[in-house]
Formats: sequence, structure tokens, C-alpha cells
Amino acid sequence: MTLLDAFFHPKSVAIVGASNDTSILRGKLLKNAIASAYDGPIYPVHPGGGTMQGLEVHRSLGAIPGGAELVLVASPGKTVPDVVREAVESGARAAVILSADVDEVALAQAVGDSGLRYTGQNTIGLLATRGLAATFSGAAEDALEAGFPAVHPGRMISIVSQSGGLGMALFGRGLAQHLDFHAVITTGNESDLECLDFIEQLVEEGQSGVIVALIEGLKTPSRLAPIAAKAADAGVALVVMKIGSSQAGQRAAISHTAHLTGADTAYEAMFDRYGIIRARDQDEILAIAAGLARFPRRRVRKAAVISTSGGAGAWASDILGNAGIDVPLLSDGLRCDLDQWVPSYGSTENPVDVTAAVIGDGGKSLMQVFERLQDTDEVDAMIVNLGLQLPGRIDKLSPQLAPVLANATKPIVFTSHILPIDENLTALAGMGSVGFSTFSQCAAALKGIERYAAFQERWRARETHAPPGMTKLPSLSPGVLDEQATSRLIAAYGIPAPPAALVTDRGAAAQVAAKMGFPVALKIQSPDIAHKTEAGGVRLGVADGQAEAGFDEIMANARRHAPEARIEGVLVQKMMPKGHELVIGVVRDPDFGPLVMVGAGGIYLEVLKDVVFAPPPISRQEARRLILSLKIAPILLGTRGQAVADMDALADLVSRVAELARTETGIEQIDLNPVFVYPQGQGVVAVDALAVACGVDTRTQHHG
Amino acid sequence: MTLLDAFFHPKSVAIVGASNDTSILRGKLLKNAIASAYDGPIYPVHPGGGTMQGLEVHRSLGAIPGGAELVLVASPGKTVPDVVREAVESGARAAVILSADVDEVALAQAVGDSGLRYTGQNTIGLLATRGLAATFSGAAEDALEAGFPAVHPGRMISIVSQSGGLGMALFGRGLAQHLDFHAVITTGNESDLECLDFIEQLVEEGQSGVIVALIEGLKTPSRLAPIAAKAADAGVALVVMKIGSSQAGQRAAISHTAHLTGADTAYEAMFDRYGIIRARDQDEILAIAAGLARFPRRRVRKAAVISTSGGAGAWASDILGNAGIDVPLLSDGLRCDLDQWVPSYGSTENPVDVTAAVIGDGGKSLMQVFERLQDTDEVDAMIVNLGLQLPGRIDKLSPQLAPVLANATKPIVFTSHILPIDENLTALAGMGSVGFSTFSQCAAALKGIERYAAFQERWRARETHAPPGMTKLPSLSPGVLDEQATSRLIAAYGIPAPPAALVTDRGAAAQVAAKMGFPVALKIQSPDIAHKTEAGGVRLGVADGQAEAGFDEIMANARRHAPEARIEGVLVQKMMPKGHELVIGVVRDPDFGPLVMVGAGGIYLEVLKDVVFAPPPISRQEARRLILSLKIAPILLGTRGQAVADMDALADLVSRVAELARTETGIEQIDLNPVFVYPQGQGVVAVDALAVACGVDTRTQHHG
Repeated sequence: MTLLDAFFHPKSVAIVGASNDTSILRGKLLKNAIASAYDGPIYPVHPGGGTMQGLEVHRSLGAIPGGAELVLVASPGKTVPDVVREAVESGARAAVILSADVDEVALAQAVGDSGLRYTGQNTIGLLATRGLAATFSGAAEDALEAGFPAVHPGRMISIVSQSGGLGMALFGRGLAQHLDFHAVITTGNESDLECLDFIEQLVEEGQSGVIVALIEGLKTPSRLAPIAAKAADAGVALVVMKIGSSQAGQRAAISHTAHLTGADTAYEAMFDRYGIIRARDQDEILAIAAGLARFPRRRVRKAAVISTSGGAGAWASDILGNAGIDVPLLSDGLRCDLDQWVPSYGSTENPVDVTAAVIGDGGKSLMQVFERLQDTDEVDAMIVNLGLQLPGRIDKLSPQLAPVLANATKPIVFTSHILPIDENLTALAGMGSVGFSTFSQCAAALKGIERYAAFQERWRARETHAPPGMTKLPSLSPGVLDEQATSRLIAAYGIPAPPAALVTDRGAAAQVAAKMGFPVALKIQSPDIAHKTEAGGVRLGVADGQAEAGFDEIMANARRHAPEARIEGVLVQKMMPKGHELVIGVVRDPDFGPLVMVGAGGIYLEVLKDVVFAPPPISRQEARRLILSLKIAPILLGTRGQAVADMDALADLVSRVAELARTETGIEQIDLNPVFVYPQGQGVVAVDALAVACGVDTRTQHHG
Repeated sequence: MTLLDAFFHPKSVAIVGASNDTSILRGKLLKNAIASAYDGPIYPVHPGGGTMQGLEVHRSLGAIPGGAELVLVASPGKTVPDVVREAVESGARAAVILSADVDEVALAQAVGDSGLRYTGQNTIGLLATRGLAATFSGAAEDALEAGFPAVHPGRMISIVSQSGGLGMALFGRGLAQHLDFHAVITTGNESDLECLDFIEQLVEEGQSGVIVALIEGLKTPSRLAPIAAKAADAGVALVVMKIGSSQAGQRAAISHTAHLTGADTAYEAMFDRYGIIRARDQDEILAIAAGLARFPRRRVRKAAVISTSGGAGAWASDILGNAGIDVPLLSDGLRCDLDQWVPSYGSTENPVDVTAAVIGDGGKSLMQVFERLQDTDEVDAMIVNLGLQLPGRIDKLSPQLAPVLANATKPIVFTSHILPIDENLTALAGMGSVGFSTFSQCAAALKGIERYAAFQERWRARETHAPPGMTKLPSLSPGVLDEQATSRLIAAYGIPAPPAALVTDRGAAAQVAAKMGFPVALKIQSPDIAHKTEAGGVRLGVADGQAEAGFDEIMANARRHAPEARIEGVLVQKMMPKGHELVIGVVRDPDFGPLVMVGAGGIYLEVLKDVVFAPPPISRQEARRLILSLKIAPILLGTRGQAVADMDALADLVSRVAELARTETGIEQIDLNPVFVYPQGQGVVAVDALAVACGVDTRTQHHG
């Protein structure tokens, strides 16, 4: 029996602090448990005994014969540690601590090493639509009264929320939109179990096709990667609303729950890596969840818009187009077929204006249109705008429609420019489809389906081997690395840097310079000269014939500047021709560890915020995807007659930097700025590199 | 009596083609007219006579004593010209032609020069909530049965839609959201009256605070500017959904109604100029319209989020922040005041977590919070998240809330993370406020209020004088202008170009080059040499001491290349040092005439699509706003230690180009590419200019 079973389907449940008064929260807690699908024994516990809402009251947990597997605690905060101690003693396996103001230390002591796991304190509880309702939420009370729609096992939606109010509110809104829920879990203060625990349990349980997570900040961010990877492996889509994309949101989350929201860019990087879809608004979340629950793993790059109204079809097409889903003109051959069923005053171009007449024959023509569009590569999905305001509209079509939807291999979603009525949306949900109130929700759903399907393709085809020829270095001393240490680090990971050689005489300077090609830079090398330029120890742009004189000059300058300095020689470095300019770096996030940064070079990084972050490892394939997500990517691909950049070399470089970031846990930060990217076949070079080592080696973080 | 009165409040109305059967459209037409607020005589017309839905039927329009001022025509298409002829003869002033398949030529003949104005054919009609319903729309039928909410005269919402279905659908959705409508007008084929006519009439009528227009493409685009200007002068906000932002949408609009959607960028430019807010989705349109109807002309740059739930407040803050509305941390002084009414376990930082406790005292504390936030410059508006799912929530607060809302100078909008119930939204609407179902709608409403208020400030303060020193040129010959003609054109409008002089001997070449400063370009000038570079007639980067030899060389090259060519001399042109690079140009849109283009220079124009368009005239003030709307604007303003660009000179240049575009109606296209912008005080220069004249002078277009 899993931990989740102990919450959803316990052998028995006790409620401490339950009340007979269903107008108060403690009464609703008992009422909801009774009203839920759970059919095991429910034991209200109260020192007064008697009965409560028709159930026999036990005077203590210890007085329950055989004890209770799950204990719901709603008694005053100061009583909770004793209640939990009693729960442990009576053999309880899990608890939901709805009480607030509980002394955390006393609570932890009460649990001790008993193995009891709990959610809360300060949670409004949790609910399984086919199991126990362990919550005093009014939204849950309403939902239990209304009942739940038909089940689609394995593809239901679960909500895991740190905020009880937001979680239950989203649940209520989703039910109003006829979504098919499996469970709602709110985690409150997360003193013990955190939302990631429940996400992991839900993935393992296998009933949820989509898990919606509402989070302020993760308690243990490092667990996100392995749990998200497990979800990805299982094909369970994660949809997240995370607070903290604005300063005020971050401020509020901290003030509200003491959750630190973490750096939003770091969360974004993790979400992107694990195909976690971030949504912003309630309706958007529900649309994405509904789409993914109904239609797992379908690519949706292009769609047909089928409408009984021409204007509405055009409007819907604009909204799809703006969301990045193509509404392509259908081929002549396909249109010719569709013309059999679409009246001549309609249109088969796409949007397909089937006209209201197509409904007239009980849906026969419309079904032909659906079937024909199932059977083509020209579209991946259909949006159907179909007068869902009309009573009986879907019921009348259902004899024809139900088998078509049951056999559909492509997502078919329904909407209506006139506000749909519940009856039609319910009927569609019952047939395993989905009806949305707005065109934007249709677009959000299809876009979500596409994003997750594309991610799944990437995930399943991901390369796991790193580029060859990389060696971990011995530990580095803290602070900014000097030029030699930086060069060693870069070289150890095969990161291309300008050719350079240390020489100790003027002849060798000229010789190696000639070999690498002019112009070159000459730089004095001495552990005792920190500021080379001030010491006259640097000459840039040294041309053919000037190398020997240049060598002499900077040696003389250095001796004059610091007569006692130990001079190792002069570094001759090739001056690289300009290429496409990028910036590649590593930063270390306190939550998620090292992140690789890839950005537009020069001023555009800052002005255009043209930068992406990703956790290591980064395969060359993945690196290419990151690079192509930059705004300036078209330049690399050869806009307006520019040379096409060496994408292979660039991707390899990013991959190597990621491996460095992952392996060299003592490295706090790296900036390769600029990186020059040359035309195809001509490679890349990290022209300048800055590396900073931290005081101590941090724990290696593995992401997937 | 205005034309609109003839539609909304006619002295009498006849319905040709009415039916007794209210299940069919022609029956609904009569039913809706009867059910509407219109209290004048309604005359069903049918050759059979008798009664219809309780009204006496006249056998013909001519048989109505005194005739009918307005005629609704729903008879078969082929009968319509005769019906209209009869309407004209019986003295009708206006008609609504709901019939389709009407011969346009016969219809126009029937109207002749009678002065009768009509909407349609193929419209589903129009409706004034306090006047006549002249529509067979089912949505209108439902609305008339439900009745309309309380009126806010002068600030109501009107819908004008080319598509009948979309217009009535939006009306139905708006009613479901408790919006306060004045009229819905659908224009069908626009054979006579077009949507702009109705917008103009509604503006003049003065009952509408907001006009929502759903358009596929304007029949007479040139009328948009003067009518939009009239709306702007009257402070009537225009909110537009225009089809055609995607290729599929454009295709559908053309196929559906034969409306050409026009170039979307040109429409965007016009919308921007006249403060017309473009919205994409149904809920977004309604949110913006509701916000603008309730709260005209308030700037909303920063808002307070007031929430009884901390998590919801944080979420709402993120959504506002992402919409560009700041949720600032409140000052210590202000927070100290708020602390009097907000429990210590809440927060006064902003989002203001007032906690559920603040409702407990019947709203007294909450009202104090509202009042205190009215009385500060720290926020411009409030979003209040307040448990609108609870029956009686607003009713119980209303004794306290109504006077606060009545006296509020700042927008206060309400929402609820748990799905609101109608009762509370209705109660809020009744108090002149507005409740939204989602945080996104709140954000859209406030953003719409801010955008329109900012536009109104610009509009009222707009400069109307052009920069000094511009002269219209005599007419230009068609085709690409040659260098001299281009220079004359540029110079006539005071557009700075590189210093240049035509010389005919080597000595003069050196002299003028020395005077303007090296390096210079030398270019052969001959009407017979089209391709100077191929003829060896161009030398760039000519340094001091090379001018005379350069002159000799290109003269010799030219003579060798084209011995018969008439050579006018050599143009000496100063090579300009690099500055910030922009592109400025003029294109001529078939719908709206000349548009000035301002874009990022070089490759970024294309890669980043960093370009804006605007119709002339463009004041220097407006030019500055356009420039600042570019993505690369931060570079001009001195990002990362770059020199601050000469914005005054750049704005002046844009303003001059606009004046050129407006005045030189024979100019089809201009490209100033690149324009170099130098540091503040050092001006701008159009380094290269291309101008194309069209065959014939087109009619001058004036915009505003």
C-alpha cells in the first residue's frame, strides 16, 4: 500500500476536532469525509463521546479499536503535538494537519522516528474524487454535493497546491468547466511532506495524465529534477503556475508563506528542461490541462478551423495563428473531397466554413468532414465552432459524433462564438472530447498539447553522452582564476580558445606568432604582476615584423614597473577575426545549482534580454534548440545573405561548457564573452574567458 | 432627428416579411420588436392582412396611414427592390435589409436619390437597449427576455459589427458579464451604410462611452481617420477586434464577405495614432470595454492589489506585473496607516493581504483601506480579490461600499480566485463598479484604461505645427529618382544628408573635399550612366591627398565605359562616421495612403521585426514616442555606457519625413537607409536615400 493510498483510501480514518456543526470548518471536515466516495470507517474523536453527524464518537485515538490508519487533525494548534503522539502510539500511518499555530519542534518530536508522514500544518486538506475527502474546503463541499463527472482512468487531472485557497479555487473552476479530476492536494506549510512528494506519488500511482502544480517556491528545489524526470518518463504532463514572475509576487509569496520564490529565470530553465508547461492565468491552466488530459502526445503544428460561421472561423484562425499554430490553406485535392459535404456558399479553404446547413442532416456531412480531415497530413488537429449555445445541439449529434470522437487520432476540440451552455460542454466531455468557452482557450489547449508532445519527442530521443575528451581538474583555489588557470580549465573541457604560447625569447615570439598568424597579442606572464596593462605588459594587434620589438618592449616595461617580479615569459596569443558574437556562461543558482547561459553578444544581450538558461547536462541536440530559441537566431542561420554560422561547433561548445559546469563543482561562475562563431565548418572560439572558483566544492548536482 | 434616431426611436416601424411563427427568424424579428423598449407603432406588412402576434397586419407599406419612418425588410431577396421602392414612395426614411440575395443594382435604383439610408443587405439587424430591436437574432431574443441592467447614460457600451453573428455573440457574452449596453448594430454587406457611419453617429449621439467594433475590413478606409479623430475629441473610446492578423484570417475574411482586410500593419498604425485599442479575444474585449465604460480617463501605471487571500494576491500581482502595471511596495508611512485596519498576520506591503478577518466588521476596516488608498499618489487603482463566490458577499457590504465606490476617484475593480457567482457581479455593476471572473480580465481592463487615458493626454496635448523650412517641390517624373532629384527632395524638407558638391575639375574636387573633411566618396554624375559602380565611376573612402587622382581615375573610367555619355561632373560626398543606425522610410498603403516607417538599422530590422509605422503628420513629440517604442530604443538612450543619441534631431527628422510623405503625394516610396544618429547635440544624417515617384499624383490624404 502506497503512502498515497493512506491518504486516498485508508483502512480507517479518525478526525480529531470534528464538529457536529456543518456551518463551521471542523464540521465541514467531517461532512466532506462522509460525503466522499470513501467507504471505510470514519471515526470522529472527541473527549465528550456521543455521536456526530450520525457517527459514533470515540473519546480518544487510543479508544478506536485497531486504531486509525489516517488521522485528520483540526484541533487547536497547541493540542496538535499531543494528538500526533497519540496517533503514532495508536499505529497511524499518516496525518493531515489542518490546524495552524502548531509548535514545529514539538510536532517533530511527536512524530519522532515513527515513520508517520503528514501534510500541513495549516493545510485545508486534500481530496480524491474516487476516495476520501480530507478537507474542510467549501469548494470541496460544493463539489461533493454536485458529484463528479465520468472517469477517464489514467488520464485524469490532479492539482497539487501549496496554497489551499488557490488549489481548491482552481478545482472549483475546473469542475465548472467539466474537467475530469482525480485529486486535489494542498500542502500548507510543508513541515513534512512537500508538494514534490505528492507529485512523485501521483506519477507513480498512474491515475493522473496531467498534474497541475500551484507553487510559490519549492521546499527542496533539488528534488524537482529527478521527480520531473520521472513524470517525463511516465508521460505525465506537469502544468505549473508559479508565483514570482514579478517583484510584487515574490514579495507577497515571502510575506505570505515564508516560501522563497527563488530566481524566476532558474525555475524557467528547469521547467523548460523537463517539459513543465508554465501557465499564467486560471482559464489558461485549465485549458492546457484539459487539452493534455484528453489528447496526450499529439503534435499540433497545424490545425483546421471548422465553423458554422465564416466570421467566427476567421477570428479563431487569427487567434490560433497568433499562438503559433498554423491554419494552412488546404490542398486542391482535399478541398475537392470536402466540397462534397460543404455547401457552395461555404468555404473549404481553411478556415472551413461548413455553414449552419451542415448540421441539418443530423451531422452526417459534418462527420464526413471530420473523417476526411482525420485522414490527411495537412492538419494535426481540428477546432470546431458549432453553436454550443443551442440546447440539444450535441445530444442530437451524439449518435454520429460519439463514434467519430472515440476513434479520432487527432485532437478535436469544440467551441462556440456564442457563449456555450453547460449541457453541450458536459455532453462533449462525456464523449471524451472537450468544449471551450473562448477561442483563446482552444488555442491554449492545442498549444499545450503541441508543446508537451514536442517535449516528449525530445525527451525520448535525448542524447545522454557528453562530447568526448574532457577531464576533471584537481581542485581550484577560490577567487578569480588567473589567465593560466583559466586556460587550463577551458582546455580540459575542449573549449576552443585563441591559439596561444608562452615564449621566453624574442625569436620564439616572432616564430610562434608567424606560425599562428598575425596579428597577435603579447602579454607579460608573471605571478607578481596583477595588472598587466598598467605595467605596460600588453600589446595588442602586433603585426608581422613587430613581434620581436614588441617582446623587448613589454619585457622592459615589466622590469621597470616591477623589478623584483618573477617573469615567466610572454604569452603570444592570436588575435581572432570577428565572427557572430555570443556570450556563453555559467552561473550557480542557490536552488538548482549550475545553469548555463547562452545569450546574444554585445549590447543586445541587455537591450533585448536575449538570453536563455539551462541546467547541465546539455546534449549538442539540446544546445542547438537553446541557441535557436534566441531572438538573434535567424542571424546565425544566415538572414539577408549573412554566412550561416557553424552551429555544430557552437552546439558542441555549449555542451562542453555544461559538462564543465556539472563536473567542476568548485566553479562559481564562468563568462565566455565574446564567443565568436565563424561560418559553417570554421568553428567557434571563446575569445575571452573569466572564471571564478568558490571557496568550497559544492555538492555535485545532477539533473536528469 | 438624427439618422440613428430613425433606427433606434422611429416614429413608426413597418416589418415586411414578418411572421406569426416565432420559431423562425421572420417571426423573431417581429417578436423582438414588440419585446423591445420601443413604444411607437409597429406595422407588420403582409398581402394576406389579418393579425400577427396580436398586431394588425397591413397589406402593403402604402396602406399604412402616414407611412412608416423605418422599414425592416425580411422578405425574399428578389422582392426587396420593389419593397424598397414602395418604402421610398410611402416616405420611409431608413431601412434595415435583413434579406440576402438582393440584386444590388436594382436595390440602388430603388433607393435612387430619395435620401433613404439602409443597413444590410444580409444583416441580422440592430438593437438599442432603450429603443427598438430590429433584429431576428436569437441572442437578442434571449437578452430581451432577460431584460437589461441599470443604465449609466453617456458611458454605455455599443457594439458595431460587420458580422451579425459575432456582434450578437459578443453582446450575449457581455450581458452575461453584466455589462451595460446601449446598442448593437450589425452591418452585413454594407451596401449603403457602413460600420464607420454608425460609429460616427454613436459618437455624435453621446450615449456611448465605449464603442466596440468588430471588423473584417473597412469599406472606406479613408474615413477611419476623421471619424476616429471625432471619437477622440469626444473622449469616446474605440475598442476594435479586426480580423486579418494571420494569413488564414485574411483568407477567410475575403472568402466570407469579400471584405479585403487590408495590410494589418497599416491598420495597426492607424489604430495607434487614434488611440484605438485592438483586442484579440472575446473576454479581453469585454474586460477592456467594461473598464473603459466605468472609468474613463484615469492613468493606471501602478495599482494596489487588495486580497483576503495572500496567495491569490501574489498571483494577481504577477499577472498585473506581466501586463505592465506596477504593484509597488507601499511607503512606510502609508503602511503604518493601513496597519490600523489590517490584522498583523496579513500584510500591507502590496499586495495588501487584508485577510478574511477584514470583512468581519461589515466592511468598515476594508472601507478604511479603500479610502486611505484613494488618498495617495502611490497607487492609481485597486484590484480587490474578495470571495465573490459567497452568496450575499457584496449585498452585505453594500451599505458601506456603495458610497465609497460612488465617490472613488480611482478605478476599483473586483475579482475572486474562486469562481464568482452572478449575484455578486450584478451587485457590483449596480454600484457602478465591475467584477471580473479572472485576474487576467482585471489586468486587461486596467491596462485598457491606462492606454486610453495616456492616449487622451497625448491627443489633447498634440502639436499641430510641422517643423519649419519645408517647401513642396514641382511634380516629379515617375520611377526611381536619380541622385540629384533625390537630393533636391531631401533638401526641400530639411532632411540632413552628407555634405556633397558637384565639381568639374580635379582641383575643385580636392578643395571641396578638404573643406568638408576626409574621407570622401567620389561618384561620376551622368544622366547616361545608370550603374556607376560597374562603370568604375565610384570611389569610396578617398583620403587626404587622393582626391585629385581619384577624380582623374573615375572620369577616365567613365569615358572608357561610355564614350558618348554626357558627363556633368563628379559628386564629392563626405563619408560620414558611424552612428546609431536606423532606417526611416515612407510606404504608400492602398487603404490609408502614406505611412512613415521607423525601424532598427541593419540586420535587426528584419530579424527582430523592430519597426513601427505611423501616418503623417507626425509631430516631433509623436516621433519621439514612436522611436521609444522600438525594441532597440534603450540603445539610443545610452545603455551600458553608450553615448545618448540625439533624440531631438532624430524626432525632427521623422517629423520632416512625415511632412514630405504628406505633401509630396507623387512620392510612392522613400528609404533613408541607413540613418546615422550621433550623440546628443551632434545631429543625424540620412546617409543614403532612395525615392520612387508614382505615375500620377494621388489624392492628398489628411490624417488628423
